[in-house]
Amino acid sequence: MPSLAALRPYLRDALRDDLIAAVVVSVLLIPQSLAYAMLAGLPPQVGLYASLLPPLVYAALGSSPYLNIGPVAVLALMIMQTLQLAPAGVSPSEAALVLAAEVGVLLGAAALLRLHALAALLSVPVLHGFETGATIAIAASQIPVLIGSLATGGTLPDLGRSLQAHGFDWHGIGALFGVTALLALIAVRRLPKGLVSRLAPLGVLLAAIGIAWAWNPLGLSRVGELPPLALAFTLPRLDPELWTAMLPGAALIGLLGYVSSLAVAESLARRVGQRVDSRRELMGLAGANIAAALSGGMPAAASFSRSVLMSDAGSRTRMTGVFVAGLMGIALLTLSPLLAWCPKPVLAASIMVAVLSGLKFGPYRDAWRYDPAEAALMWAVTLLVIFVGITAALGLGVLGAIALLLKRSARPHVALIGRIPGTEHYRNFERHQVLLDPLVLGLRIDESLLFLNGRSLADVVQGLLDTHPSTRRVLLQMSPVNSIDFSGLSALKELHETLERQGRRLDLSEVKGPVLDRLKASGWEEWFRGRLYLSHHLGMTASD
Amino acid sequence: MPSLAALRPYLRDALRDDLIAAVVVSVLLIPQSLAYAMLAGLPPQVGLYASLLPPLVYAALGSSPYLNIGPVAVLALMIMQTLQLAPAGVSPSEAALVLAAEVGVLLGAAALLRLHALAALLSVPVLHGFETGATIAIAASQIPVLIGSLATGGTLPDLGRSLQAHGFDWHGIGALFGVTALLALIAVRRLPKGLVSRLAPLGVLLAAIGIAWAWNPLGLSRVGELPPLALAFTLPRLDPELWTAMLPGAALIGLLGYVSSLAVAESLARRVGQRVDSRRELMGLAGANIAAALSGGMPAAASFSRSVLMSDAGSRTRMTGVFVAGLMGIALLTLSPLLAWCPKPVLAASIMVAVLSGLKFGPYRDAWRYDPAEAALMWAVTLLVIFVGITAALGLGVLGAIALLLKRSARPHVALIGRIPGTEHYRNFERHQVLLDPLVLGLRIDESLLFLNGRSLADVVQGLLDTHPSTRRVLLQMSPVNSIDFSGLSALKELHETLERQGRRLDLSEVKGPVLDRLKASGWEEWFRGRLYLSHHLGMTASD
Repeated sequence: MPSLAALRPYLRDALRDDLIAAVVVSVLLIPQSLAYAMLAGLPPQVGLYASLLPPLVYAALGSSPYLNIGPVAVLALMIMQTLQLAPAGVSPSEAALVLAAEVGVLLGAAALLRLHALAALLSVPVLHGFETGATIAIAASQIPVLIGSLATGGTLPDLGRSLQAHGFDWHGIGALFGVTALLALIAVRRLPKGLVSRLAPLGVLLAAIGIAWAWNPLGLSRVGELPPLALAFTLPRLDPELWTAMLPGAALIGLLGYVSSLAVAESLARRVGQRVDSRRELMGLAGANIAAALSGGMPAAASFSRSVLMSDAGSRTRMTGVFVAGLMGIALLTLSPLLAWCPKPVLAASIMVAVLSGLKFGPYRDAWRYDPAEAALMWAVTLLVIFVGITAALGLGVLGAIALLLKRSARPHVALIGRIPGTEHYRNFERHQVLLDPLVLGLRIDESLLFLNGRSLADVVQGLLDTHPSTRRVLLQMSPVNSIDFSGLSALKELHETLERQGRRLDLSEVKGPVLDRLKASGWEEWFRGRLYLSHHLGMTASD
Repeated sequence: MPSLAALRPYLRDALRDDLIAAVVVSVLLIPQSLAYAMLAGLPPQVGLYASLLPPLVYAALGSSPYLNIGPVAVLALMIMQTLQLAPAGVSPSEAALVLAAEVGVLLGAAALLRLHALAALLSVPVLHGFETGATIAIAASQIPVLIGSLATGGTLPDLGRSLQAHGFDWHGIGALFGVTALLALIAVRRLPKGLVSRLAPLGVLLAAIGIAWAWNPLGLSRVGELPPLALAFTLPRLDPELWTAMLPGAALIGLLGYVSSLAVAESLARRVGQRVDSRRELMGLAGANIAAALSGGMPAAASFSRSVLMSDAGSRTRMTGVFVAGLMGIALLTLSPLLAWCPKPVLAASIMVAVLSGLKFGPYRDAWRYDPAEAALMWAVTLLVIFVGITAALGLGVLGAIALLLKRSARPHVALIGRIPGTEHYRNFERHQVLLDPLVLGLRIDESLLFLNGRSLADVVQGLLDTHPSTRRVLLQMSPVNSIDFSGLSALKELHETLERQGRRLDLSEVKGPVLDRLKASGWEEWFRGRLYLSHHLGMTASD
């Protein structure tokens, strides 16, 4: 326990700011928790429970003072689609606990195995394409709720089938509440920024609750009574079939939750010139999801809108998360009768406004101008989310990004370099006036030698030898080579053998220290007959 | 048609060599075709038909004078496992035609879309691990045939279950033929290399056929009468369910067939200092497989052993493939009564000796010494082939290779560079005695900016700024950056915004021409406020 004296600077400097930020965020977090639980097809308390312990655990394990962990719209859509795969007889709430546990365990394992680099799997086109598609799918999925229909669906075809199955039903009073709230929420977005505009959405919500309570019209779909606060500190159901069914969805939710949380943390840290420890973020998120699973919540991650709000409202330390957890506990104990009257069509309106306000089509145009293939990938991912589902979209998106990478880097970039007259410097023959040596072919390998490009190294060099047939030695300048994997080593060995068979020798210059150490440790003296030179010039002018 | 005069140099110089090579290869090709059809669980003529038209079509479309296209052991194992997925009521021969058609169409589509870079997906550890595992699985699958049992299976668990289901049956005379042939084939491998040792395996086979014919023991499993040569020039069965079931297998067979054929072609071309056109190889293989599908054959690729033999035997041009096709046609018309007597246990012995002689464990040791993670991947792929199956092995192998790549390249390599006193050259601060400028931070980006590493660019630069807080400008030397993808562009934009918010400017020096052209085309003037310098020195000393 820190002593009171150690706490004094915090109490004096940051306590007030953190408390204010916690209040501001909680005001947004309560309706969002209800709304995103509804979006995921779960009872409202599952969303509220995901906002209680997860921010507390994140405050202990994570690193950012700005992130608010809890239910997130895009994850809610993914949860909804994953829960559909649960075996018969398992309630959505039970399946959601298992899902949160799996997300937590997978993220924790990734942190232990130092796999935070896997975040790079989601390239910008895939991530933006996915988020846009998810936004549209979320907004579409709320249209039935908005007009009081019972149809549900996470993709347009599912939604269409469900609407048809329900005979395109709708409910006049529900639609009245929903559409009025939607128009009101759109209208208050036009207010000048400030305290009024920030509190206006809450005002709309409270007004709707008040009207629903006073009028109490027949058939209006409401949030309803929450069960008394009794967190389920039990293990999620240990049913192997259920765990297997949830696993692929958990992996995708974990990956996307981590990547989007990290992106939020980094963007808020950059504002103040700070850095983010990606491994601690991974651990914080893992702990938060395990906490959600043990306390009856759905999978949680950092919400972009709430985290920006928390940063804008002046949060200074991770204590804000502790205060948010406390406020959520108080809210659960006291506000339950009030929230019970909240009309679901109004929650649907708030979801639609929240997600659609983040819709950006600029990146599609930017990507198209920069690289039509990447823009096509972005569009493909978007359309797959809307029409097929999240698994297909993310799976094909990742594969597509890798295919583009392979196309881009299939051949190592090798430059023929010559000497700048009167110096000991060597530059690209194609771009400078340089001198070549007819007996020694000097080449610069401009990239790391990895399995992506290693396969064609010998072919690229042979192409240059064909135009320089008098070559007796090939001298590779290795200074740009930061890394050689086992496939790259095999490529180097093949090149060595090919040249040896032709009576030519392969020499290397300026091999980086760590690269050379690994080559030597692998026993390369057993096959390498060439020489190593400390500088390319020494290698070019060597007489041996 | 080429005129006779144009043919004269060929007739004089190469015809004789090509004819001899064709005879030598055909002598090996006939028993291998029978054996690999048996291995794939197909009737013997399906293997022979795959050796007839495919080499002819490859000669027309391909590029290597050394490749012999036809049945291959590893592909035969993959075909066997894929055929198990065919819907009920479809004969293996029918399914094999569909499989060959799909392999051909997929390879043709890859050639049209210029996707030959996809070959890089199979890194050396994955490829070697797969081939070793397949070799062991093939040898194991032939043990029951060798001892006259009816059990079959492409993985050890399958084989164990099948042996159990058949009550561990065996057949004394079959085992006598099989084991004797195995010992004889192992013994003749010890002969000194030459014509005798090359013809000895054929001698063993002919002796076994002779004994089987003279003795004609009861119950010995033989190849049996081939149907009269009547190539099925019909379309493969157009059953959508069958085509869908074969598709994943076809994709893997196509990828592996292409990668291994390309590797053989490249290794034989390098011996004589020639190069291989990977796209023409793709087209040749696509045509060969479509020809196989239209003439009753199984999927085909280049065999390593037969191609080496063809090269060693002196093949000079692709006409050798035409002669092989002609000889196979004659063999089919005349040798059928002879081949019918060939005992299956003897074929099994020849498969075992052929594949096991290629077994190499050296790469496991080499990989372990170079990178334990890559060695672990190699072992994992091997064990997956033996115990689970080809799809799991190749799928997880490719994913594992990508995961290792992500781990390796998650952060862009950025070097802090300073000026070598008295020159205009800049070198890595950590490795040279250089001068730094307190106001201008000079950094060299040592790699292309791609989605693999772009995400952490701003973080890496911020880390350097933390230790150099007086920096007013950041100047990135971009000469090693060969390529920037859309994610890399976003990373550059983020870095720009971060620095701008801190009151610092981002400048670039020595941006490569093609990279700059694409940046400009993408409209980057809209957001970029820094300056571009032709040389890093000009940028460091600029006063504006």
